[in-house]
Amino acid sequence: MGSTEDLDYPQIIVQYSNGFLISKVMFTACELGVFDLLLESGKPLPSDAIAAGLSASTMGMKRLLDACVGLKLLAVEMTQEGALYRNTEISNVYLTKSSPKSQYHIMMYYSNTVYLCWQYLADAVREGRNQYERAFGVSSKDPFGAMYRSDEEMLKFMAGQNSVWSICGRDVLAAFDLSPFTQICDLGGDFFNDSIPEAELYILSKILHDWDDDKCKQLLAKVYKACKPGGGVLLVESLLNEDKSGPVETQLYSMNMLVQTEGKERTAAEYSKLLEAAGFGMIQVKRTGKLYDAVLGRK
Amino acid sequence: MGSTEDLDYPQIIVQYSNGFLISKVMFTACELGVFDLLLESGKPLPSDAIAAGLSASTMGMKRLLDACVGLKLLAVEMTQEGALYRNTEISNVYLTKSSPKSQYHIMMYYSNTVYLCWQYLADAVREGRNQYERAFGVSSKDPFGAMYRSDEEMLKFMAGQNSVWSICGRDVLAAFDLSPFTQICDLGGDFFNDSIPEAELYILSKILHDWDDDKCKQLLAKVYKACKPGGGVLLVESLLNEDKSGPVETQLYSMNMLVQTEGKERTAAEYSKLLEAAGFGMIQVKRTGKLYDAVLGRK
Repeated sequence: MGSTEDLDYPQIIVQYSNGFLISKVMFTACELGVFDLLLESGKPLPSDAIAAGLSASTMGMKRLLDACVGLKLLAVEMTQEGALYRNTEISNVYLTKSSPKSQYHIMMYYSNTVYLCWQYLADAVREGRNQYERAFGVSSKDPFGAMYRSDEEMLKFMAGQNSVWSICGRDVLAAFDLSPFTQICDLGGDFFNDSIPEAELYILSKILHDWDDDKCKQLLAKVYKACKPGGGVLLVESLLNEDKSGPVETQLYSMNMLVQTEGKERTAAEYSKLLEAAGFGMIQVKRTGKLYDAVLGRK
Repeated sequence: MGSTEDLDYPQIIVQYSNGFLISKVMFTACELGVFDLLLESGKPLPSDAIAAGLSASTMGMKRLLDACVGLKLLAVEMTQEGALYRNTEISNVYLTKSSPKSQYHIMMYYSNTVYLCWQYLADAVREGRNQYERAFGVSSKDPFGAMYRSDEEMLKFMAGQNSVWSICGRDVLAAFDLSPFTQICDLGGDFFNDSIPEAELYILSKILHDWDDDKCKQLLAKVYKACKPGGGVLLVESLLNEDKSGPVETQLYSMNMLVQTEGKERTAAEYSKLLEAAGFGMIQVKRTGKLYDAVLGRK
């Protein structure tokens, strides 16, 4: 849309204002099991049957289904028996719980944890720190203590991370020839306190973005020490442009790191600097054009 | 984007998931006064100066500004003194408090009231009723009692409504030739209990969408009785397509009516039926292509 048009009627501002309505319609249809019921039924269903099957009000369900049609998450056909709803292909693949590429768990994490933290975005910007205390009454000093505040919360977070990996993992692993590395360590757990096992390749997937520069350097130095000569470290992160002008998704995730962690999203040069400070060299960067990019450093 | 592409990587699902992040970045920049400060300064400013001027953390503010650049709500230029930020034209016109077309108040209403109610969208769909009780601990039975739960809340809501009128009013009033009507009553207040003054034209702007069919009929009958012969009633509402397949914005607003009121958005035929039941005839419908459309009925 052109800017003259926008000045007469602010289309993008209306669209941005409605953003949270759109998120919540999709999250709620997932949470209530709309896409699962339609997949299992194997045939299009009227809204009354969907409402009954999911123990929801007929009035509320009808409106939710129509909004999903508007968002192209459902399709509707008018028949003699009235409107019949079915999943679109994208919903079958990504929004049903049973699909191998299901995004259900990350949606639930977004809808029930991240959405509430973001209510306090203004406070996060004022204070420059995460908002677990305001959102959930748990201390902000240890973000992972807060994120893993119960076994249930930890499992939800982990399942969410797996959802994302199911759509981004392939591109990240295909970014470089990793065949020379036979002994691979996917770093997780309490890596600041535990010892790190010897390996040829360490994968740090969305780990550094949770921490400030000092903690990143500390962790990378520990990895460098454990790493076999000729080995390396693969960072899986969403990369900002060097001038921080975009991509907008990564800018939004960097705000989320402010609201939820001690970290931030970084540019390729910033990650290279952190790697070099720890001793790694021959750094290669690969942008995938999807959510997560890859940076490889060698010992 | 094509559906094959989407099946490999679900771009629209990522986009919908990020919707609430985008809303909150814009709302928060408004709330903190970023656009006001940049308008008043009359020249581009570095992020440190903006953070200092708004008593915010430099780290948080820098990220907020960069995200606004990604959303084209701010522009940035790199100079010898570093990055300098300025408003885009659309932000000057719509996001500053002092602009005649300011959307500031409706944004604050969305950010601090509607956003919280929508945390309970799944409950609203299950129960088929508004969620003031869960969101704010006030009874759901009287939605306007809940919306006007304090003078401050009432003023915020009213100011929000005025923001919307400033961008939609002109098109709605130009939809029909209203020059024959000299005595005009913009209906507001406690219209179910108060008497309605005699007039030639009654404007019901976003009133019927708050109520169920029975209450709409009751109100329209009262208006019909007060209306001078030859007079009329102008409904200002966002119209659904007859098959309820769209527009998606109106579908989202209809969900919002579920979450916040006793009403819903309706099709032109549904409004015509309500008008006819009250005695009005010669019904004309005009879609404006913007947020609000117009329906005129004559006595």
